[in-house]
Order: sequence, then C-alpha cells, then structure tokens
Amino acid sequence: MNNFIFQNPTRLIFGKGMIAELNKAIPADKKIMITFGGGSVKKNGVYQQIQKALQGREYIEFWGIEPNPAIETLRKAIALGKEHSIDFLLAVGGGSVLDGTKLISAGLKYDGDAWDLVKKGAYHDTVPMGSVLTLPATGSEMNSGAVISCHETQEKYPFYSNYPVFSILDPETTFTLPPHQVACGLADTFVHVMEQYLTTPGQSRLMDRWAEGILKTLIEIAPKIRENQHDYNLMADFMLSATMGLNGFIAMGVTQDWCTHMIGHELTALHGLTHGATLAIVFNGTLRTLRQQKKEKILQYGERVWGITGENEETRLDKTIEKTASFFQSLGLSTRLSEENIPDTTILEIERRFNERHAAFGEAENVNGAMARKILENCK
Amino acid sequence: MNNFIFQNPTRLIFGKGMIAELNKAIPADKKIMITFGGGSVKKNGVYQQIQKALQGREYIEFWGIEPNPAIETLRKAIALGKEHSIDFLLAVGGGSVLDGTKLISAGLKYDGDAWDLVKKGAYHDTVPMGSVLTLPATGSEMNSGAVISCHETQEKYPFYSNYPVFSILDPETTFTLPPHQVACGLADTFVHVMEQYLTTPGQSRLMDRWAEGILKTLIEIAPKIRENQHDYNLMADFMLSATMGLNGFIAMGVTQDWCTHMIGHELTALHGLTHGATLAIVFNGTLRTLRQQKKEKILQYGERVWGITGENEETRLDKTIEKTASFFQSLGLSTRLSEENIPDTTILEIERRFNERHAAFGEAENVNGAMARKILENCK
Repeated sequence: MNNFIFQNPTRLIFGKGMIAELNKAIPADKKIMITFGGGSVKKNGVYQQIQKALQGREYIEFWGIEPNPAIETLRKAIALGKEHSIDFLLAVGGGSVLDGTKLISAGLKYDGDAWDLVKKGAYHDTVPMGSVLTLPATGSEMNSGAVISCHETQEKYPFYSNYPVFSILDPETTFTLPPHQVACGLADTFVHVMEQYLTTPGQSRLMDRWAEGILKTLIEIAPKIRENQHDYNLMADFMLSATMGLNGFIAMGVTQDWCTHMIGHELTALHGLTHGATLAIVFNGTLRTLRQQKKEKILQYGERVWGITGENEETRLDKTIEKTASFFQSLGLSTRLSEENIPDTTILEIERRFNERHAAFGEAENVNGAMARKILENCK
Repeated sequence: MNNFIFQNPTRLIFGKGMIAELNKAIPADKKIMITFGGGSVKKNGVYQQIQKALQGREYIEFWGIEPNPAIETLRKAIALGKEHSIDFLLAVGGGSVLDGTKLISAGLKYDGDAWDLVKKGAYHDTVPMGSVLTLPATGSEMNSGAVISCHETQEKYPFYSNYPVFSILDPETTFTLPPHQVACGLADTFVHVMEQYLTTPGQSRLMDRWAEGILKTLIEIAPKIRENQHDYNLMADFMLSATMGLNGFIAMGVTQDWCTHMIGHELTALHGLTHGATLAIVFNGTLRTLRQQKKEKILQYGERVWGITGENEETRLDKTIEKTASFFQSLGLSTRLSEENIPDTTILEIERRFNERHAAFGEAENVNGAMARKILENCK
C-alpha cells in the first residue's frame, strides 16, 4: 500500500425531503448566489423546495450553466457574483452545475480571467459552496474536482478547487431524469471506479473489495432502474454509489489511471458528446489496448465482479472485456465511435492534441498520442 | 435506505514514516500535552520518532492511560492539562489511549467532574486532539466515540466527543504488537462491522457490499498475519480495515445493533477482559440467540462472505454460525465464557444491571436483561 493523506470534509445530507435542511446548512450572514442549469429543476419541484427552504433569506440566482460548463458562461456568473459581493454559492443541478460553480467559487477570489485558473489546474482560495445534487454521476458533490470547457478553443480540462461544505442528495429528485442521463450517470460511475481500481494489483485488498462492491452494486441496480426509475431504494443506491465512486474513499493507498477520462474529455470537447457516453465507448478501447499491461487486474475484476473463472487466461480476458461492453450496451449506450458517427479525423486530432501537450496519461504514463490513437482505433 | 447525515472531518495520515508529519499537523501556537499508555512506545521506537518530529516544540507528557481507560486516571490528566493551560492533545497508543484522551479533551473544557460527562453520554466543547495510532482495533482514530470505565463502581460506558483533527497511522508500528492484541484487534474490527451489517436486510446494497468487503479482507489477512506480523502490506490492510470498520463509512442509511458491545462492556467492567476478547465470545451468543430475528442477513453473510450455499436454510444458518466461531478460534481467542472462567453469577449480574438501567439494546430494542442472559447462556 502506498502512503497517503486522506481528508474529505463535505457534509453529506442524504434522503427524502432533506432539501428542507438548506436553511440550517447555510450560515445566516451569508450573501448567497444560487447557480442553476437549464430549468428542469422548476419542472421537478426542486426549485420550489429550495425557495421554501430559503424563505426569508436573500439570494440572487444565476441560470444557464450548460452541460460541460463553459468558461464563457462562468465568466458572466463570476462578474455577477463580484457585483453583489457574494460570499456563499449554492449549486443546484448535476455535475456540470457543480463543476461550474467550483470555478465560480475560485473566480470570485481571483482578479484575473478565470480561464487562467483552469490552465493552472488548481486554485484553493475560494468562496464556500454547498450543493443540491439532482443527477448522480460525477461525484462532484463530494470531491474537489471539476472539468471546465472553453467553446472558443474546443478545449476541456480538469480543475481542482475546494470541497463543497455540504451536499444535499434526495434520491426522489432523480425520478424524473431523462433515462439517457441516468444511463450516462451509471456508466460514468462505473468508469470512475475502474480508473481507481484497474491498476497495479495487490496494492490494497480492502480498496479492491470496496471498488468491486460499487461495481457489483451498479451491475445489480442498472437493469432494475431501467425498469422502474421511481424505486426509491434503487435510486438511493445509485446516488450513494455515484458519490462514493469519486470521493477518495476507494483511492486510499492505491495508484490511479484516468487515461480513459483524458481521451473522453477530448471527444466531448470536439463533438459535445455527454461525458458518460464518451467513457462507455473509450473504456472498451482502453481494455482492449492495455489488455496485457492490466492483465492481472482484469482477471481479478472478471472473476470477482462477473464470476468469470476457468483455466485459460486469454479466454477469461476476452469474456471479461466482452461482459464490460455488454454492460454499457445494456444501458442503451453506444460502445463504438462509429455508432456516434465520430470520424477517423477525430482520432488523428486527439493524437495531435496529446502530442502537442506532451501527454503521458494513465497509471504507467504511457498513454501518449500514439497510444490514445490505438485506444480509439480499438473502439472504432 | 434511511435518511442520514454523514461527515467525518478527520485527516488520515497513513503510511511508513508518516509520524514525521506531526510537526506540520499541529498548529505552531499550541500548548501540547501528549498522552501515552504504559510505555511500549519507548521500546518500538514510536516515542523517539515523536520526539524527533516535535524537536523544538514545547510539550508536556502524561503517562499511564491503562487499557479500558479509567476515570480515576483521566481526572489526573485533566488536572495536569488545566494546570498547564493545554490547548492541544496528542494521543499516542491504541484505542484506550485515544478514548481516554477524548474524555480529557472534553474535561479540559468542563468545570465539574468529568465522570458527569460520561454519565451524560456526550460533550462537544473540546480541546482539539490528534493521534498517533499504534494498535488497530477500535476505530477511535477516525470517530467521535470513546468508552470510559470507572474502577470504583465497576462501570463502563460509551461517550461521544469530537473527531480527532488528524490521525497518523504507520503500519510499521504494529509489527511488534503482542499477537494476542492483534487477535483482539481483528475480532474487534470484525464485530464492529457486524454491528452495522447484521441488521435489517435490504437497506443499502452498497453498504452491505462494503461491510462484506471488510469482513472478507479480515478473513483473508488473519491467518497470514499470524504467520508473519512483519508483512507491511498485510498490516496496512489490517490497519485500514480497522479504521474503515468504525468511521461511519459503512453506516450510511442503515440501522445499527451494538447489543454485543453493550454486553461485552459489562464483561470487561466485571472481569477486566480485553474488549475484543469479550466480543469474540458474546457475538456467538448473539448469533445463536437472535438467529431467527437476523435470519435473512445471516444467510446473506454466510453466502457472500463464507460461500455457504445450499437448499436448506437451517443448515446454512448452522454452518454460518459455526464458521464465525471458528474464525475467532483461529485467532487464538476464546469463544465460550467457560474458557475464561467466567461464572454464572456474572450472567445474573449482567441481567440485573441491564434491568436496573431499563436497557433495551440492539436494532430491535429487545435486548433487555432477560435477552442478555439468554445471549450469555448461549456462549457459556
């Protein structure tokens, strides 16, 4: 096991009706700006619950943080927040609203252009933020990460800020999500876990078990959710799994990978594909390409998560990789670039971008431009 | 899944050589009192590492917090701390030193006798504390609980204070622990997990998987640890499992039991038996007595953790209960009261004490005096 320092200060407020806790959760003297996405929260009653919880409190609203939040939008929110001397942010929505609000939270304390902070990668002088999460997927509600896009340059980069001081998760808010969003959330969570699990074997027995525990939970609930998205316990397990999949709890003392994500971000930047949907494609390419490098852990994953055993290792590897693709397909997601009409020129462009950045992603730092191209060719 | 609020602010500083982080971890302006147990830390080099890390810092030392920390000892530490206006505590040792220091931390901010606080059950105005853990078992390094004894009255009660601000865990400090202490730590962790897992079925698929993940890890490492207590990765997994077993991470949205612990505490209070050793006995009685009430979850545990399957439920229950006792026996621990020469009069005294306190412990609140007696008779 590697040495590590772990701390996650976020207060998780979880369950039916818990949006009512909002007033208590935000200190009384704070000047609040609430950030929203497109407006679905007005249809599903979340907005009304928030209004009720914050009755008598003063706040301003910023609407329109889009999927894959863009610096162009966030600059406007930062300007508005500065104008009103905002000192508390409440993000209401999915991972994109939360991610965008993390940059706003840093931007409010920064004099220059906030895109500098994204390019820098991290900034910790921030205005405190809380969240009401409505779409389980990114884990942003209980981690310090965010991913920010720039429309002008078609770029998309990770950025690290501070943890939300609290996050409210009411599984009932997920009942009316579009099924495709739920599918992408399940795929996103699955691959988050894989990025922390499918690395060097034998680093921590416990972390392996916990990662496998999330994977098994996702595999168990996914078909049931597709049958009935209004089952509270199912959606609660989904919501909790998504949070636990990327809050550091399964990353203690183990190395991580993230090459699938880095390639997926490029697909989103170039084609606007939903994040989870990019992972459901690229991860298959990663497995096929790094099959030998990750052999031992793929075999462990196959056996413990899918029950794939037998004498012949190559057959077990084949079956495990197939099972993984079938899982994404069972969610109704594409598992090939061709299904999303992504052309070969995109593969070349991603290779070029990786080369330009002198990228060497992945646990073994061997996912450079050429390797990214192989991975993408393996899921064409 | 039940509604819940989760927050665990402790900073976990984990790994080889991490005691060196101590100076950074304690704010520069603090007046420190370091609390210790009997002195084993001088033999295993932990004391010297702490001295080195805190070179140039001023601190006082309090020695002699005994196993099952007694209010009689802690009163002296509180008096010393008040005399020196101590505003930071560093506990160095196992769960007993940490538990005792939690009461000191509260006692330093309280004008009356600290036993009042124990009787009250909780107190949150505390002096901050950090810890260097040397014995994995209680989880005290990453939770707010403590258990305090009173020699005069032969009483032992749980008490809730604040979380350590940091805890340093170096697996190398466990290499020289007496094997019986390691065995008790493994049993303690196992039963901590059971108290949160062996309750109403179907509350959270994920929490079930995580609890089972700790149990499987313990079962895998226990025999290996008995062979070689100097294997770093084994001891790291043990240490991490013990912390994760009682820091709230497997308790989200699920009900808990703790009746085995409440009975075990009485055995320690009356006979001085090590905490983990009491659990390795009493838990078998709990399983045998509440076999029907906990049937569904025992079957799940048997199947997923021990691989016990088959048509006949009663046989599976038998096998699972036997396997559990065998596990404790494999650690070299007693699983019957008679093996520790505990007489029938103790059973009657515990029944009397439960009745006197109008106790109704356990998830179903049905473990009163009569039920405690049955549980103890079932592990005579």
